[in-house]
Amino acid sequence: MTDAADPPVSPARVAVIQFDPQVGLDNCAANADRALALATRAARDGATLIVLPELSTTGYSFRDRAEAYEHAEEVPDGPTVKAWESFAREHGVHLVGGLAERDGVRLYDTAVLVGPGGYVGRYRKAHLWNREKLWFTPGDLGFPVFETPIGRIGLLICWDIWFPEVPRLLAQQGADIICSVNNWVWTPPPIFDETGRCMASYLTMTAAHVNNVFIAAANRVGTDRGARFLGCSLIAGTNGWPIGRVAGADEETILTADIDIVSARSAPIWNQLNDLIRDRRGDLYDPMLGYTLGQSAPR
Amino acid sequence: MTDAADPPVSPARVAVIQFDPQVGLDNCAANADRALALATRAARDGATLIVLPELSTTGYSFRDRAEAYEHAEEVPDGPTVKAWESFAREHGVHLVGGLAERDGVRLYDTAVLVGPGGYVGRYRKAHLWNREKLWFTPGDLGFPVFETPIGRIGLLICWDIWFPEVPRLLAQQGADIICSVNNWVWTPPPIFDETGRCMASYLTMTAAHVNNVFIAAANRVGTDRGARFLGCSLIAGTNGWPIGRVAGADEETILTADIDIVSARSAPIWNQLNDLIRDRRGDLYDPMLGYTLGQSAPR
Repeated sequence: MTDAADPPVSPARVAVIQFDPQVGLDNCAANADRALALATRAARDGATLIVLPELSTTGYSFRDRAEAYEHAEEVPDGPTVKAWESFAREHGVHLVGGLAERDGVRLYDTAVLVGPGGYVGRYRKAHLWNREKLWFTPGDLGFPVFETPIGRIGLLICWDIWFPEVPRLLAQQGADIICSVNNWVWTPPPIFDETGRCMASYLTMTAAHVNNVFIAAANRVGTDRGARFLGCSLIAGTNGWPIGRVAGADEETILTADIDIVSARSAPIWNQLNDLIRDRRGDLYDPMLGYTLGQSAPR
Repeated sequence: MTDAADPPVSPARVAVIQFDPQVGLDNCAANADRALALATRAARDGATLIVLPELSTTGYSFRDRAEAYEHAEEVPDGPTVKAWESFAREHGVHLVGGLAERDGVRLYDTAVLVGPGGYVGRYRKAHLWNREKLWFTPGDLGFPVFETPIGRIGLLICWDIWFPEVPRLLAQQGADIICSVNNWVWTPPPIFDETGRCMASYLTMTAAHVNNVFIAAANRVGTDRGARFLGCSLIAGTNGWPIGRVAGADEETILTADIDIVSARSAPIWNQLNDLIRDRRGDLYDPMLGYTLGQSAPR
């Protein structure tokens, strides 16, 4: 107990990288190089956790499964994860990025976490968007949360956040920060409001708010065989509001925020009587739909 | 099949009423009168579904359980529900409003739905905010959805929407519109953004969006023994965006929206391959937390 505020227990500079990768085998090397050039800039600026978009090395709009297969690689033994491991070791940072994963004959839309000690883990996108269903297999690894020296990190990919169950499950498992890797595309209009934010911005903000978790959301920009992407990358605080600005729809940019990652473990200061997780009414949610979640009796 | 667009199957003019009730037994009659005066104005303007705030007849800030008990009444046999039934019959409308319910020695923070044919049903607030826990009993009726001639109506109350499980469960049971009755109070700052919306506005918008359901959210304004209320009432479309404006923080007002309630039953036009409910990954959500929800295998 001191008079001064406690110093951060787990200070981090989080960076989300918004750029414009292009699909096509001839572009993969340039995509990977551009991502790491921007990540290097972020690391030199002091970032300790860096987040790249979904499918950051391959681009998004595959023509068919055969082309997706050609773009995919093994995790963690493929060249992209190896390059990311080297980067993280060299700069002493954690890095999250999306790539196309091949596992035998199956393809997954995967996010990988690497750190200064190498590969930490992967998450395979559970909710596939549109034609992704024609080449990727739905994720089969649940919603893992990874313990790291800087805090507990959960991963989700794009359309996942349309399912409030996903950030909820990550938070219930103790995630301090969710790295959200995205290729947010056009959704039915209106797309942007007068603030320049899109509905995905609000999904990110409200998921952070109701789960008392940081969310660092990296999206891509540009167009890729006609698909248009929305930008709007942001870093949401545990109160839901963006820390700093929400990125524009067309700019290549790096957003950063200085946060104490494990501050997410303190309940928000609502009042003396409420707690977001303890207040869940599992007793009501679950019997109705055949759930059997044994927690949260009325108080 | 016609060349013209199909006419609305279940057209409604939804009105949410934002006003300033005051706690204290001496104020209850005036609160009730003011609510129905505004509801009458809405009905004369063509409203067919009218939503009042939480605890609309009693005000909010009870001193203790004894005072809450004095303010509470039986449902559906107490005077407030009787008055609402008469109003609904006279004007041929559906009306939702919040009141303090007494059932034996128990008190509930309850929302009631009445229609032209009388009392339809009640919902008891499941997630109690702050000192409400000291006088009310947590709701024990689950999250009912009521079939009416104008569509399926779900009810939720204030802090409930901080739990994404609630609008999800209402939507999964087929709710076309959720009537959200509120006494949204101060939450940790920032409270309003540059649009004048508060986090509760965004919780309403994103819950409507991810569940493809209308949400008509009525909040109160003013102060009540020092508690400050936020206004920000709104009617969210199934795409999540407000239909019309979001109410200010200080104004007594009526917002209206003309909607085809059962249009919520059509899946949103995302693309040929996605559907918000079908895409849920119950197979992943549920084993992790001991759920046993048998649905949504990977496709």
